[in-house]
Amino acid sequence: MADRRLRDRCPRPDAARDNRRVSEQIPTPVAELARRSRTAGRTLAKATRDVKDRALEEMANALGKAEDQVLAANAQDVAAAEEAGTAPGMIDRLRLTSDRVAQMMDGLRSLAGLPDPIGDVVRGWTNPNGVQVRQIRVPLGVVGIIYEARPNVTADAAGICLKSGNAALLRGSSSAAHSNAAIVAALRAGIAAAGLPADAVQLVPGPRSVTDELMAARGLVDVLIPRGGAGLIDHVVGNSQVPVIETGVGNCHLYVDADADPCTALEIMINAKVQRPSVCNAIETLLVHREIAEDFLPEAMRQLAAAGVTVHGDERVASYGDVVPVTEADFAAEYNTLDLAVAEVDSIDAALEHIHRYSTGHSETIVTDSQSAAQRFVAEIDAAAVLVNTSSRFVDGGEFGFGAEIGISTQKLHARGPMGLPEMTSTKYVVSGSGQIR
Amino acid sequence: MADRRLRDRCPRPDAARDNRRVSEQIPTPVAELARRSRTAGRTLAKATRDVKDRALEEMANALGKAEDQVLAANAQDVAAAEEAGTAPGMIDRLRLTSDRVAQMMDGLRSLAGLPDPIGDVVRGWTNPNGVQVRQIRVPLGVVGIIYEARPNVTADAAGICLKSGNAALLRGSSSAAHSNAAIVAALRAGIAAAGLPADAVQLVPGPRSVTDELMAARGLVDVLIPRGGAGLIDHVVGNSQVPVIETGVGNCHLYVDADADPCTALEIMINAKVQRPSVCNAIETLLVHREIAEDFLPEAMRQLAAAGVTVHGDERVASYGDVVPVTEADFAAEYNTLDLAVAEVDSIDAALEHIHRYSTGHSETIVTDSQSAAQRFVAEIDAAAVLVNTSSRFVDGGEFGFGAEIGISTQKLHARGPMGLPEMTSTKYVVSGSGQIR
Repeated sequence: MADRRLRDRCPRPDAARDNRRVSEQIPTPVAELARRSRTAGRTLAKATRDVKDRALEEMANALGKAEDQVLAANAQDVAAAEEAGTAPGMIDRLRLTSDRVAQMMDGLRSLAGLPDPIGDVVRGWTNPNGVQVRQIRVPLGVVGIIYEARPNVTADAAGICLKSGNAALLRGSSSAAHSNAAIVAALRAGIAAAGLPADAVQLVPGPRSVTDELMAARGLVDVLIPRGGAGLIDHVVGNSQVPVIETGVGNCHLYVDADADPCTALEIMINAKVQRPSVCNAIETLLVHREIAEDFLPEAMRQLAAAGVTVHGDERVASYGDVVPVTEADFAAEYNTLDLAVAEVDSIDAALEHIHRYSTGHSETIVTDSQSAAQRFVAEIDAAAVLVNTSSRFVDGGEFGFGAEIGISTQKLHARGPMGLPEMTSTKYVVSGSGQIR
Repeated sequence: MADRRLRDRCPRPDAARDNRRVSEQIPTPVAELARRSRTAGRTLAKATRDVKDRALEEMANALGKAEDQVLAANAQDVAAAEEAGTAPGMIDRLRLTSDRVAQMMDGLRSLAGLPDPIGDVVRGWTNPNGVQVRQIRVPLGVVGIIYEARPNVTADAAGICLKSGNAALLRGSSSAAHSNAAIVAALRAGIAAAGLPADAVQLVPGPRSVTDELMAARGLVDVLIPRGGAGLIDHVVGNSQVPVIETGVGNCHLYVDADADPCTALEIMINAKVQRPSVCNAIETLLVHREIAEDFLPEAMRQLAAAGVTVHGDERVASYGDVVPVTEADFAAEYNTLDLAVAEVDSIDAALEHIHRYSTGHSETIVTDSQSAAQRFVAEIDAAAVLVNTSSRFVDGGEFGFGAEIGISTQKLHARGPMGLPEMTSTKYVVSGSGQIR
């Protein structure tokens, strides 16, 4: 090496940009895609925040430049969905507009403004023999995201993975295939423009069986995160060999205790049910202590009816207003609609038992002025979030100040509750010495 | 309630001890056992540190009182193993002595001295609207441990689970069935004596198929931790529906860089290979940079031979001393014996590539005086622990000062590296307000 001139030996600032050529993606089997992700992930893991933030900016720029192509591709998906007789709500989720593209771009740019979790020293100490131990945040590696109709998830998930140093393998819905392909092509061009490997973000195309290949790619994919309805999540959780982070199924309860302030309870009930019924942190069941039922339920039922909510209740509840007869299935349901199961309970114990039985472990709320009731509820409810005298709608990465959210984990391992950037990481112990042996 | 006297209404201090009767365990299907564990887990999750520490003390006392029964039961297991022609090493692991019972008792008592992770506030903040968010450590719930011959794991695992508020479902080896049953009976009596539910610790008896039932008990068992050889761990990881924490398979490398201090490298090599070859943090492969090979390898080979180590190497290595010809399988092997694969590498890149290819992600070591080589190794090696100029034998819960260790996780989700009490927990968000809505 000594005989080469220094200017030949030192890398030039632009040399890393050569991989811009690979931003066009060729369809390949899942294992091959995953191997490319691993290779890209090794580079991403070493990328500094500066480079990653520049990539996020370039991704946003590229998406802006590709707006026409993205909207044209989306129009194809929407036309196909309409032809197939897809429900209007689903088509609304699928449809992109200039505004929605701008939102994706804003999302990518705001990620650039968030702190980089990679390299954080989680804890560290020096052993009595002088050996230094540091636990340091590192990326997970290759993250597979399996999601449904909304094409905006493509840009959100890609951005969160990139910022946290993870290579993203994105498996979207076939109904959004054209939209996703156009978005990913733009994102990859942006990533390459910043000198990072375009394979940091890859789409997993192909038939339904490809999802099963993804679930079998243990050792190549480090974690799978399904985002969507209960059916999708159950399928992935039940069949994946790759570790899964379970997200988002929320059969959330609001318990109005005997000692609740009724006005507070009414406000929280309406907010948690009506403000956005389609989301996982909306309530699906209202439990009312019998000692407050006579005071609370008539007005509650009136307000629910006025807000267009259908109440599913038994004869005790029916005595306070109009109900549809409630079934066991109602108590287990995550409606995601303007429906609410309502039950009167004889005690806080009965409320705890009911929630213990039907909860999906997402977010459970008590309204009470009793310190002991609040304490019991907080201690005994087994969920990602337990709320006292406030709305379950606050259980959200944005509301928690995380700046970005990949989903809300309802499992106990690794991450529980809203998942921000630190939840997309693992750690590594770095142990340094000066020749110490045991 | 008002007409009952206060002394009838308040619980008497001894009332909780009524469950002492259930400390004898009746064999039942796994799902039923898991349901009992869940019930016990709900009580354990609320138990204060005082009560849990008293239980650990009672468990140790009960084990001491039951020493004769435990040793008699163990003698049955040992006799059966001898009759079956089991290897002496295995029989040694299976055998209990008065000393080993005392070690189990010490282990339980030392757990009482460790801080309780449950209830720790991991982080907390107040949102701009006044809503308070606290992330609090809670138990995982029901922890299944699947392990091999050593009956001392029974007491260790039971103690760690109890201290961290988890109900333990213990699936030991059939070869230790009598020993494990005697130990668990004693532990359960101790737990009950402290007023906690004996079902906090249950043995899962029955044929091999029972392990599969345990792996299918998703929703009833929160996590499975296999402890043992690669075969057991692969089986559990590949087939479990319950989330698994992968532990302990260690194909660990020592890389002696061109800029290594040879004396430091020799000391670390001998310590990491010879001090206790049967453990997962011992090294299995030595990689030597070609620029230092001529200086380092002759003495290294001499010291290895003197320590009884069989070197597996190619012709380059053979030029420095006696070798058995190395195969691809050697580089992939976790010997756990006095064997060592040795290779000369042309560069740090070649060393990184070799480790990237064969590492099980446990503990990887570099010996170097080069700051840039150390930095690259630390940044690019993807493992639970990366060591610089010190022995991989330090990657251990005891050496890390954790006081107790359930195993060393080699996966990236949830916990990575030595797992102490905090790694046996999940978290819960407690969100408190005064009527805030969104």
